[in-house]
Amino acid sequence: MPCKNCREKPVIRLTNSNIELCKSCFFKYFEKKVRKTISKYNLIEKKEKIAVACSGGKDSMSLLYLLNKLAKKREIEVVAVAIDEGIKNYRDLKYLKKYCKENNIEIHVSSFKNEFGFTLDQAVKKIKNINPCSICGVLRRRLLNKAAHELKADKLTTGHNMDDESQSVMMNYVRGNLERSTRLGPITGIVKDKRFVPRIKPFYFLTEKETATYAYLKQFPVKFIECPYSAISFRGEVRDLINSIEKNHPGTKHAIINSFLELLPALRNLYKESKVRTCIHCQEPSSGEICNTCLIVNKLKNA
Amino acid sequence: MPCKNCREKPVIRLTNSNIELCKSCFFKYFEKKVRKTISKYNLIEKKEKIAVACSGGKDSMSLLYLLNKLAKKREIEVVAVAIDEGIKNYRDLKYLKKYCKENNIEIHVSSFKNEFGFTLDQAVKKIKNINPCSICGVLRRRLLNKAAHELKADKLTTGHNMDDESQSVMMNYVRGNLERSTRLGPITGIVKDKRFVPRIKPFYFLTEKETATYAYLKQFPVKFIECPYSAISFRGEVRDLINSIEKNHPGTKHAIINSFLELLPALRNLYKESKVRTCIHCQEPSSGEICNTCLIVNKLKNA
Repeated sequence: MPCKNCREKPVIRLTNSNIELCKSCFFKYFEKKVRKTISKYNLIEKKEKIAVACSGGKDSMSLLYLLNKLAKKREIEVVAVAIDEGIKNYRDLKYLKKYCKENNIEIHVSSFKNEFGFTLDQAVKKIKNINPCSICGVLRRRLLNKAAHELKADKLTTGHNMDDESQSVMMNYVRGNLERSTRLGPITGIVKDKRFVPRIKPFYFLTEKETATYAYLKQFPVKFIECPYSAISFRGEVRDLINSIEKNHPGTKHAIINSFLELLPALRNLYKESKVRTCIHCQEPSSGEICNTCLIVNKLKNA
Repeated sequence: MPCKNCREKPVIRLTNSNIELCKSCFFKYFEKKVRKTISKYNLIEKKEKIAVACSGGKDSMSLLYLLNKLAKKREIEVVAVAIDEGIKNYRDLKYLKKYCKENNIEIHVSSFKNEFGFTLDQAVKKIKNINPCSICGVLRRRLLNKAAHELKADKLTTGHNMDDESQSVMMNYVRGNLERSTRLGPITGIVKDKRFVPRIKPFYFLTEKETATYAYLKQFPVKFIECPYSAISFRGEVRDLINSIEKNHPGTKHAIINSFLELLPALRNLYKESKVRTCIHCQEPSSGEICNTCLIVNKLKNA
């Protein structure tokens, strides 16, 4: 089938609507979807400072490119924030730094090593009974928020796509961890705590296939490799399961996201009483007496 | 490991709590769980007439046995209702009828052939674009409700277990069919329509493994075979996926059910405005102008 719009040679078939698009129409479709998500959920307002969480991977590179493109039009200020977790043969911020330099984008890099005194590789070797992704997720979120807060950013944006989100939704459901899902959605809700920079996800309605195709066709200098720890994660398991349903029933990821968005206001209402406390060690916001970051850091000190 | 309670030879390991029980302690555990579910969710009240939906399979046979055992104590009246869908080499109500006769239980049998003029096998051959389970589910629910209503039963009870329920929860979620989930739970809610006999599920907190073990050890004369159409169903697919997560993460089914029950009041509140209409053809309750039963029956007439 030729491109649905202009009859040119197609580059992608969209799984949900089953239409095919050529390169130029796909770019238009992709960028329009991002703009629509931003305006529908009021993700970004004029003159805001937006910190873009950059891993150097395909999704965040596309996000940085697109937001930088929008910057002039919407009078927003874009700054890149990156975390070096210390994962050998994987994390590589070289291209990201080069890209930011060439495009005059300010970049702020924090590292696990500098902030906590250990790399993720070192932490994983020392703590055996926690999944690497759990350690990394907690520490990375802390540093991203810290950087965004210090840079006085109004929003912190991540490149999470529909696949990431549908996995998170399902992970929380099958783990009986519903309260965690109140933090999901195109923009974080509930927590009206000034110490948290609101997180937004402009790629919320784009699938992994679409974000990967976009980055590939835009020829961003990124590596399409997976984190070495992802194979042993619960997320990887749930991803494979959702992909297997999607294969037989195209549109499943969209349906999961739609179900979730229908439910989200009720869910946030259900847990609206949950309080944000202050960690007795580091004075950062926490759900318990000691925050997860300090729990991990202390565990490592005593390991 | 010996039985956790009495040190006898164990017959089962409970996946969620990781304890092992002997035959006699397992029977106690199983029956206590049923009684607790009934009292916690107020499933059955004194002097009620309970219609037990019986397929002749393991779950409904155990349910019929247990409710009949409870009948005297709770002053309830128990009547069996069975549906013969017309599935060759599968549906067999011989043992069920014999059991009811031996135990003085009234039994009421309806059949697709008598009520609609065709067996499920005939319907499946004629209508190609609907999943057999969808046809069967709609028609069976209609006949069960009709029988329970005609018998003036206060409740209609089914042998649905935790596996069935966690599958339904996930199926509705990944299909974007959340409103359907408002009908799930240990007892049907929302619809306060006299034409619907409330449905209850005393095995709600028991896994398939537990109900199968119970029926097997009680030596009920049932066949442990699967419906020939189940292999091609979406339910079968979701069942395999949940089982694969449960295998790596024991307790997943319990977590899904707990998440769901936490959510259910909010979900029912979300859809409380949904109206029950009256089918213009058969005057039975319906969500649309024409009920699903009539849609299927008409499709078959015109096929």
